[in-house]
Amino acid sequence: MSDVQLSGVPVSPGRASGPVVRVTEPLGEPASTPPPDDLHEEAARIAPAAQAVVARLEAKAAAASGDAATILSTTAAMAGDPALVSQAEQLVTAQNIPAARAVYEAAANFTHALASAGGYMAERVRDIEDVRDRIIAQLLGIEPPGVPELDQPSVLVARDLAPADTAGLDPALVLALATEEGGPTSHTAILARSLGIPAVVAVRGLLANDARALAVDGDTGVIEAVDPSAPPVVAASGGPIEWDGTGRTSDGHRVKVLGNVGAPADAHAAADTGAEGVGLFRTEFCYLDAADEPTIAEQRKAYTAVLEPFRGKPVIVRTLDAGADKPLAFLAQETEPNPALGVRGVRVAFDRPDLLDRQLEAIAGAAADSGADVSVMAPMVATAEEAGWFAERVRAAGIARAGVMIEVPAAALTAREVLDAVDFVSIGTNDLAQYTFAADRQLGAVATLNDPWQPGLLRLIGLVGDAARETGKPAGVCGEAAADPLLAKVLAGLGITSLSMNAASVRAVGASLATATLADCERAARAALAAPTAAQARVAAREA
Amino acid sequence: MSDVQLSGVPVSPGRASGPVVRVTEPLGEPASTPPPDDLHEEAARIAPAAQAVVARLEAKAAAASGDAATILSTTAAMAGDPALVSQAEQLVTAQNIPAARAVYEAAANFTHALASAGGYMAERVRDIEDVRDRIIAQLLGIEPPGVPELDQPSVLVARDLAPADTAGLDPALVLALATEEGGPTSHTAILARSLGIPAVVAVRGLLANDARALAVDGDTGVIEAVDPSAPPVVAASGGPIEWDGTGRTSDGHRVKVLGNVGAPADAHAAADTGAEGVGLFRTEFCYLDAADEPTIAEQRKAYTAVLEPFRGKPVIVRTLDAGADKPLAFLAQETEPNPALGVRGVRVAFDRPDLLDRQLEAIAGAAADSGADVSVMAPMVATAEEAGWFAERVRAAGIARAGVMIEVPAAALTAREVLDAVDFVSIGTNDLAQYTFAADRQLGAVATLNDPWQPGLLRLIGLVGDAARETGKPAGVCGEAAADPLLAKVLAGLGITSLSMNAASVRAVGASLATATLADCERAARAALAAPTAAQARVAAREA
Repeated sequence: MSDVQLSGVPVSPGRASGPVVRVTEPLGEPASTPPPDDLHEEAARIAPAAQAVVARLEAKAAAASGDAATILSTTAAMAGDPALVSQAEQLVTAQNIPAARAVYEAAANFTHALASAGGYMAERVRDIEDVRDRIIAQLLGIEPPGVPELDQPSVLVARDLAPADTAGLDPALVLALATEEGGPTSHTAILARSLGIPAVVAVRGLLANDARALAVDGDTGVIEAVDPSAPPVVAASGGPIEWDGTGRTSDGHRVKVLGNVGAPADAHAAADTGAEGVGLFRTEFCYLDAADEPTIAEQRKAYTAVLEPFRGKPVIVRTLDAGADKPLAFLAQETEPNPALGVRGVRVAFDRPDLLDRQLEAIAGAAADSGADVSVMAPMVATAEEAGWFAERVRAAGIARAGVMIEVPAAALTAREVLDAVDFVSIGTNDLAQYTFAADRQLGAVATLNDPWQPGLLRLIGLVGDAARETGKPAGVCGEAAADPLLAKVLAGLGITSLSMNAASVRAVGASLATATLADCERAARAALAAPTAAQARVAAREA
Repeated sequence: MSDVQLSGVPVSPGRASGPVVRVTEPLGEPASTPPPDDLHEEAARIAPAAQAVVARLEAKAAAASGDAATILSTTAAMAGDPALVSQAEQLVTAQNIPAARAVYEAAANFTHALASAGGYMAERVRDIEDVRDRIIAQLLGIEPPGVPELDQPSVLVARDLAPADTAGLDPALVLALATEEGGPTSHTAILARSLGIPAVVAVRGLLANDARALAVDGDTGVIEAVDPSAPPVVAASGGPIEWDGTGRTSDGHRVKVLGNVGAPADAHAAADTGAEGVGLFRTEFCYLDAADEPTIAEQRKAYTAVLEPFRGKPVIVRTLDAGADKPLAFLAQETEPNPALGVRGVRVAFDRPDLLDRQLEAIAGAAADSGADVSVMAPMVATAEEAGWFAERVRAAGIARAGVMIEVPAAALTAREVLDAVDFVSIGTNDLAQYTFAADRQLGAVATLNDPWQPGLLRLIGLVGDAARETGKPAGVCGEAAADPLLAKVLAGLGITSLSMNAASVRAVGASLATATLADCERAARAALAAPTAAQARVAAREA
C-alpha cells in the first residue's frame, strides 16, 4: 500500500473506500488515411453507426429513471443529430477521408464553437466529445470509452465524466467518484450529489496515481490510498429525505427553497420535487437555436410553458444572458480576447435596449397567461447605475418587481446602493467566484479556487447579506453553492433569504435547513468567514 | 451649434475648448488583386517603402525630445523590423498578391498573436497596425493615416491614438484629446498626462458627432459642443512642477513616490525624474524574446542593469507574469478560452516551481551586484495560502522581503490574512479593476467600468489599506491609478503607503501629495468611497 494522499474539491458529501475502477480515457484522434476505396459507401456507414449508438443509449434510458433517464435520452438525441451526421458525410466525400476521421472533424467544428462560447455552452463540449467517441468506436468496431461494467462496489476514477457515463451508473455499485478535472459546477458534481455518492473533483495527480484502492472523503476533499484487501467502506446512507416543503430553520426563520430552470422539462422537475418557486429561470433556451430573434409572441408562448407549473408561486425570470461567451446568431458580436470579461448579459442591452424591451413585453405577457408571480432580473450588472437603468425599463414594461444578479464583485461591494435601486438581488455564485478569484470556471487547473467555501467568496456574500438586512429587501443565492446542504446553512446565517438550485438538490437542502436554528446558522457562518482556507471553512462550519 | 453632450472616462486633468481636428481613420484592407505582373519586382518594393517610413519617423524623433523621441524611435524600429518585411516579401511570391496586401497579411500574423496574448502585449497591437498602415500608404502613394498637420490650436478627436500619433504632437497646438475607444491605461491616457493635455477616452458616440468645436473636461469626462466662432479656451497651465523629491503630505505623512520600470531605459528615466525607488519592476523583458528559458547568469545580468540606478534605494521586483495571456515560447501553455482568468502569474509557478526558484536565485544575485534594496513580489496571488507558499520560496532564496500583488479581488477581501503571510502587498489597480468589474481592460466597450474612481474599486482598496494599518505592514499601489494626482491623495487617505507609476507622472504626484494634510486626504477618501458613481467620486474628492 502506497502512502499517497491527494486532495481536490469536495463536491458531494460522505466518505467511502474500496477498489479502484478507472474509466477508459476518450479515444485518440482517428487517422485521416488511408483514403476510402469508395467514398459514397464510406459516407453511408456513418448514419447507421450513429443509429446504433442512439439505440444503445435509448435502451439504457428506458432501463433508468429520473435524471439519469433524461440525460441518457438527451445524449441519444445528440448522437442522432442529423447536422453532425450530414456534416461528417460531406467531409468524407469532400476531403477523401475515412468515416471515423470525418466524424471526428465534424464534431470538432461543433466543440470549437461551444468552447469559445464559454460558460454553460462550453460545459457541453464534453457531451459532444462523448457522442463523437461512441460513434467512432462503433465505426471502428471497438469498445466505446467510458465506465466499464462494474462487478463489485468500486471507487470510480476518471479524468472527467460525461453525462452519459454518470447516468448509466448504478449507485449501489459506485462507492465514490474522483476526477482529475472538472469543477464544483461540473456534471459529475451535480449528479453525484443527486445520487448521494461522495465525490471529489479537480484532484491533481489522480490519474498518475496507481493505488489499487482509495478512500474518498467528499467532505474534506482528501483522497488516500488504502489497503486493497480491506473490505469496502460505504458512506452512511441518509435514507429517504424527509422535508415538509417549506424552507425554514428549526426555529421558523424562512429561507425559501427554489428551483433553477431553463426549459419546460426542468420546470416540471422542480415543481415535482417540491420547490417553492423558481429562483432562476434562464431564458436562453428560447434564443439559442434561432437564426433570427424570436418574435414577442413566440417568446411569450415559450416562457408561459415554463411558468405554468408555478401558477400563484414566485418565479424570478432572468433576462437574456448572451454575449461573446454565448454567441447568438442574430447578435453578430465581435470576438473578444476574454469573452467572460466582455460584452455579455445586460451589457448587450445597453447597445440594444429594443431587444430587452421586447423580451420584457413577452415576459409580462407570459406572467399574465400563466398566473405565476413573476419578477425579472438582469445578469452581469456591475454598478448601482446599471441596476437603476434596468429597473426603470422593467417598471415601464408593467412588471411588478425588478432585481439584478450579483455575479460581478463590484456589485457585491456596492450591494447597499444596488439594493436601493432595485427590489431584490440574487447572487450567482458560479460567476461571482470566477471573477473574485480571476479563475475561469471552465478550467480544471484553477478549479480549487472556484470552491464556493473559499472565505474570500463567503465574505463577499456576507456583504450582500448585510445590505439585505439593512434595506429589508430579499437577497437570494442561485449558483451551485445553494445546492450544498451544509453551505445552505452558512448562507442562511449570512443573511441570504432564498436558495435556488437544480431540482435534484431541493429536498436535501430543505431538510438540512430544518435541522438548525437561525442562531446555529449564524454561528456556522461566523466560523466559516473566519477560516483561512476553504477546507478549514468546511470543517469550522460543520463543527459549529 | 448643436447641444450635444457626451461623456467618457477622464484620464488627464484640465479643461479646454476649441475647433475640432479629426485624426484620419486607419486604412481599410488593401485588395488582394490584381496579381502583380512581376512577383520579384513587386516583392522588392516592400523594403524601400519600409525604409522610407523609418527615415520619416527617425527625422521626427530627432526633432522631438524625451518620451516623444523614445516612442518615435521605437516605432521607427518596428517599421524597419526585418521579420515583417521578409514575411511580406515571401507572401507576395507565395500568394501572388500585391505588396500592400502582403504587408497587411504579414502584420495580421503579428497582431493576431499579440491580441490573443492579452494584457501588455495586446496593447501593442495598435502600434503594429500603425506601422503597417504607414508602409501601405507609402506603397500606395497616399497620405499616411494619423494626425493632420495642425495650423491652429485644436481639439483632437480620434478613434484611438497610436504612440507615433501622440508622440509627434506639439502640445502648444493641441488643446485637448478625446477618443472613442481606449481606456485609462491606454497610451493616449499616459502620454496626455505627461504632456499636461486634458484628455477623455472611451467616449461613446464621439466619432458619429459632427460638432465643429468641442469643450473637453478632463476632470469630469464631459464633452460638449461649443460655438465654433468663440476663441479657444486653453487649460490653465500648471507651469513647471515643484517637488522636493520626498513623497509626503503637507503635514509630513510619508507616502513614497516610486517608478514602474520594465527595462534599463525605464529605470534611468524613473531615477532621472526623482522617483524614490521602484514599486514595480516587471521582469518579463528578460523572457519575452527568448526561445529557451534564459540562464540564471543571463537573468542576473539583465536584472542588474535595471537595478543599478537604484543603489541603496528600495526596488520591488515582480516575478515572471506569464501565462496563456502572455505566452512564452518555452512554457508551451495550452490555449485557454479566457486567458485573463487562466494559468498566469504565480499560477505558472505552482506547476513549475523550478522556474521560480531559478528566477529568485538570479534576483538575489542581481541585488548583491547592484546594491539596490530589493524586495520580491508575486503576481496573481488569490489567497493567503498561495501568498504563504510564495513567501517561503523567497525566504529560502535568501531575499529579505517577500510580498504579493493584490490584483485578484479575493486577495483584497482577505488582505488581513494575506498580509499575515508576507511582508508587504502592492495593489495592481489595472487588473484588480478588470476582475472587480468583470470588464476586460483591453475592451473599449467596457472601459467606463475600468475607471479607477469607481466606488466599488475604491472600497476594495480601502479594505487593503485597513489591513495595512492593522498589521503595520506596507501596502502600495502600482497601477495607473497611482499616476492620477487627485486620486493619489485619495489613496493616501485610504491607508496606502506608497505609489508607483510611469516616470512621466512622478513629479506631478509628488507635488500633489505635498498640497494636502493627511486629514485632507482622509476626508477626500471618505467622500469618494461614499459616492454612488465614478464621476461623482471625482467631484466629491475634489470638493473635499
